Amino acid sequence: MRPDEYVIGIDIGGTTTSLGCVNRQGVLLSGVTLETHADQAADVLVSRLHDTIERLRAALPLKTNISGIGIGAPNANYYRGTVENPPNLNWGPVTHLVELFRQRNNLPTAITNDANAAAIGELLFGGARGMEHVIVITLGTGLGSGIIVNGEMLYGAGGFAGELGHTTVDPDGRECACGKRGCLETYVSATGLCRTVFELLAQRCESSVLRNINFEQMTSKKIYEAACAGDQIALAAFDKTARTLGMKLADAVAHTGPEAIFLSGGLAAAGDLLVVPVRRYLEEFLFTPYKGKVKLLLSGLPEGNGAVLGAAALAWQEVDKQNQVTATLP
Amino acid sequence: MRPDEYVIGIDIGGTTTSLGCVNRQGVLLSGVTLETHADQAADVLVSRLHDTIERLRAALPLKTNISGIGIGAPNANYYRGTVENPPNLNWGPVTHLVELFRQRNNLPTAITNDANAAAIGELLFGGARGMEHVIVITLGTGLGSGIIVNGEMLYGAGGFAGELGHTTVDPDGRECACGKRGCLETYVSATGLCRTVFELLAQRCESSVLRNINFEQMTSKKIYEAACAGDQIALAAFDKTARTLGMKLADAVAHTGPEAIFLSGGLAAAGDLLVVPVRRYLEEFLFTPYKGKVKLLLSGLPEGNGAVLGAAALAWQEVDKQNQVTATLP
Repeated sequence: MRPDEYVIGIDIGGTTTSLGCVNRQGVLLSGVTLETHADQAADVLVSRLHDTIERLRAALPLKTNISGIGIGAPNANYYRGTVENPPNLNWGPVTHLVELFRQRNNLPTAITNDANAAAIGELLFGGARGMEHVIVITLGTGLGSGIIVNGEMLYGAGGFAGELGHTTVDPDGRECACGKRGCLETYVSATGLCRTVFELLAQRCESSVLRNINFEQMTSKKIYEAACAGDQIALAAFDKTARTLGMKLADAVAHTGPEAIFLSGGLAAAGDLLVVPVRRYLEEFLFTPYKGKVKLLLSGLPEGNGAVLGAAALAWQEVDKQNQVTATLP
Repeated sequence: MRPDEYVIGIDIGGTTTSLGCVNRQGVLLSGVTLETHADQAADVLVSRLHDTIERLRAALPLKTNISGIGIGAPNANYYRGTVENPPNLNWGPVTHLVELFRQRNNLPTAITNDANAAAIGELLFGGARGMEHVIVITLGTGLGSGIIVNGEMLYGAGGFAGELGHTTVDPDGRECACGKRGCLETYVSATGLCRTVFELLAQRCESSVLRNINFEQMTSKKIYEAACAGDQIALAAFDKTARTLGMKLADAVAHTGPEAIFLSGGLAAAGDLLVVPVRRYLEEFLFTPYKGKVKLLLSGLPEGNGAVLGAAALAWQEVDKQNQVTATLP
């Protein structure tokens, strides 16, 4: 009898790194979260992750097998197996992360950026099961995105396709950390929402609880709570954010023609406050042939585990690819 | 010995329709152009095209065979074989054009919109040979586009992917015939260039030969000639057009990550006056991971025959698909 197969999904973030054993059905058997220690070298983190994986493996039931490792990380390149200039990790220009893992074990290992992992997770385990053309947007501190085309992750010529966070909303607009101006994520993200609040506080006269919070202490959570309490500035900020996202999602539809767009990440947790107006604006901005034909949905992955499941989904794809290669060898 | 194989490529436009016999190497054996008579029913045009094809076939050398038909037309849907609400043809909401051709002969027949045909032509016979990820932009009265992903035409869920002409430059911008505002093609196209000239004539004070031409008589050719003679308004109009195109092409790169973008169509004939500044602005607007990695090129297809060659390339793809199906039948 074939042993139960699992893969390891790893989600590397600037603050914490989560990993877990996940089976083919997307069931998370056991999960662990560690501090990333962003100031330390990548090799230190890989060592700690390797030790954690060995502990997880030792605790697995008999006849259970680990078949592969999938990693989601900021600025990761699937083709090269690298993490390049990650904004929140002190790793330098190029880290060959897949190679670092392979030095420690012989498992099929793949890496992709966190938003791509979210998209593959949505496709294998979430709301996009059975779909061929999908866009997944992750709304956190920034805006990430992954595009599925013909049932496959779209990497493009250099491995960096699907970076909608840095498309341009306004060429003379807000400064972005990437060096450009007016990037989508300067408007649509947790930080973008905060910036919009300060713009509205400057433009409008209504009283608002948000007038008592300084820039450093403003959070999307405080804006969400104010909006739930009927604060006009907070509500207007959500509406403006939704309009910008709806407009740029309509652009995205005009590129790859998806049947559904999924929203995930912290800001998507605002639920109807964001999703209902985004759906309305998206429809308004859609070119006629697409009108009424694109679903806007919240992620079908369980909150909190989406990133690890996404990384695990990548691992399963990699395992299947290696099996195919082995099967076609003479 | 196998007979020489040819396909028929047909490019249907609002004014004229061109067709020609094209071999596997993209060599055009014989071409014909007829009036489209946009006011007549689609069936009338198909009858006239059928007669023309029969005449071409009769004139072919012995042992020469016609293997398929490819059609490029405005608002064509590849999946359904239809032309839907074409803006310049009085054909009504849905015309089953592939079906109309099949009623008259038994050849593999496929249709796609004209810009998609241009993209397939570029891939099979033009500058994109051997490339996997490409975007082709056709700059005529409007702006069309076709996107190649993993070496294949991208159709998306509904068959209408790759319609960059109706992405939004400015949500409060110029009225577009599609009913939206600020669509890319209201800025970047022959008519968009004319509109930009009138905007600049209103905003600026320089004297210009273009101040003597009324709106109805303004053409992109007159603006091109003025720009070549050093007219400041004309030069500024080209620069503004180039900046908008560069910005939106950078957005397009962030979606599908192509290795090259090809410009074709009437306005692309402006050559360096457009291509040089578009290249500069594109580079400026590109997100860091793409910088220096995307080529901006003029179409590698011969001017004048590009549309027919594109339609023929579609026919060859269809012939190969049918052959594959036949080969796998028991």
